[in-house]
Amino acid sequence: MSCEIFHHHHRVTYAECTVGNHVYHSRYLDMLEAARGEFWRALGEPLEQLQHSGFIFPVIECQLRYRAPARYDDLLTIELWLTDLGRARLTFAYRVLGPAGKLLLEATTEHACTSLEEKPQRLPAPLADKLRRFLRPPAVTCLDR
Amino acid sequence: MSCEIFHHHHRVTYAECTVGNHVYHSRYLDMLEAARGEFWRALGEPLEQLQHSGFIFPVIECQLRYRAPARYDDLLTIELWLTDLGRARLTFAYRVLGPAGKLLLEATTEHACTSLEEKPQRLPAPLADKLRRFLRPPAVTCLDR
Amino acid sequence: MSCEIFHHHHRVTYAECTVGNHVYHSRYLDMLEAARGEFWRALGEPLEQLQHSGFIFPVIECQLRYRAPARYDDLLTIELWLTDLGRARLTFAYRVLGPAGKLLLEATTEHACTSLEEKPQRLPAPLADKLRRFLRPPAVTCLDR
Amino acid sequence: MSCEIFHHHHRVTYAECTVGNHVYHSRYLDMLEAARGEFWRALGEPLEQLQHSGFIFPVIECQLRYRAPARYDDLLTIELWLTDLGRARLTFAYRVLGPAGKLLLEATTEHACTSLEEKPQRLPAPLADKLRRFLRPPAVTCLDR
Repeated sequence: MSCEIFHHHHRVTYAECTVGNHVYHSRYLDMLEAARGEFWRALGEPLEQLQHSGFIFPVIECQLRYRAPARYDDLLTIELWLTDLGRARLTFAYRVLGPAGKLLLEATTEHACTSLEEKPQRLPAPLADKLRRFLRPPAVTCLDR
Repeated sequence: MSCEIFHHHHRVTYAECTVGNHVYHSRYLDMLEAARGEFWRALGEPLEQLQHSGFIFPVIECQLRYRAPARYDDLLTIELWLTDLGRARLTFAYRVLGPAGKLLLEATTEHACTSLEEKPQRLPAPLADKLRRFLRPPAVTCLDR
Repeated sequence: MSCEIFHHHHRVTYAECTVGNHVYHSRYLDMLEAARGEFWRALGEPLEQLQHSGFIFPVIECQLRYRAPARYDDLLTIELWLTDLGRARLTFAYRVLGPAGKLLLEATTEHACTSLEEKPQRLPAPLADKLRRFLRPPAVTCLDR
Repeated sequence: MSCEIFHHHHRVTYAECTVGNHVYHSRYLDMLEAARGEFWRALGEPLEQLQHSGFIFPVIECQLRYRAPARYDDLLTIELWLTDLGRARLTFAYRVLGPAGKLLLEATTEHACTSLEEKPQRLPAPLADKLRRFLRPPAVTCLDR
């Protein structure tokens, strides 16, 4: 069994940093959203198109563990995969790596699959199939890649 | 002739600061928006209510002059008045003062008065009358108060 | 045994909202920081003063559960208490309530107590004593207040 | 006489949008900072390196004219050049273009050249020489490219 990992890159700006020259803790969620948007696009399913088809994926829970600070001008790598894929729910996992591959952040975001009126609805099967390639349950560590 | 000035207060957070312990230059626009929202409410015309009546005020131009940095935990005073009030257009002016009344920022934001579909429309006369109390054309300096 | 709860209020601005008129999910962390800053001040221990004494409290983990969306102009109440108070570590818990007391968000942020060079150091006993009034372990639900 | 234009691209995220599905007006300043950072890097003079050499460029004034809204997922092109290059001062100009090249924003940011203690200091001649390639005084319109 294999698990694909999606990679996204991000350059840290002053707008994201705070006193002490490190990225402010909430800004990582903005980065993860950008990474997720590019993931859906790479999947051939841009979020905007899904929205036009009546599907949105609001965040219902998130968790972030800060391991080390990112600094101004660092080029970050954001790794993204899925740890859960339910009927109307999915969970993304992320690792943010700094220069030299240092682990800076581990995170998960859990999303509902809903209509535009935020009523839960089942993930379309073809979409779930595409997502499954990136699914790795949390029991299986992703450290051995 | 008199010109009323509206006052709003804001405490600086880490989220607004950047490297070097000063407020990041774009965050002032967010503060000015908060001050403007409270101004409309104090006028008896909350923006949300105006929106329900079909009026919105998108920013079409803004200008900021940074005089001195605001620091973490500074309690800022935002002064707000109008420098122009046209048929379908209005300009707010601001001064942001730090502790001890030090001038930190001077700014203006120019707004259109439009329908929800962003078509220009005339400011209702009763609203213009309320706003006029805060109008001071730029030629008249506001420094002598 | 009693547990004090600190309350902070926040008015939602357009700067915090996203498409669909709800507060963007990362902005809550900024609000929680503002509430925390006021909590420390109310305790008689402003963060800036603690920093001058060589103590900072970087966020090392956070968790957010989104229950319902906050909208533009909502006046939010942020409730804050502690669920853990260790030698060099403390955890804040939060509930964000909307108009009419509707629960919008539950969250925790875990912080290290460190020197300015981010070396862990023990919380001073007098500070820990002040914090203990707000301590309620997670087993004890805070719903019955 | 020629004037080089630097180009940077940016994909709009939900984090940058507000109610009504358009980019919130202050977020453009964050984008312009990112573009400027890449401009300095492309020049062979990354800002972080300049800072290590004792030069920083704080924003002292900025002006933004909003021509049309950017929407979620739009791929924006940011054009950047200089309109002024003084002894200890420089002004960047920008145009932000949406899909199909539509003009969305015109802006300028004026910067001081200072030491880390924010004392004005002269731009080093080799740096000024590199910047001059991108200099086009405002009288000369940049529309005919």
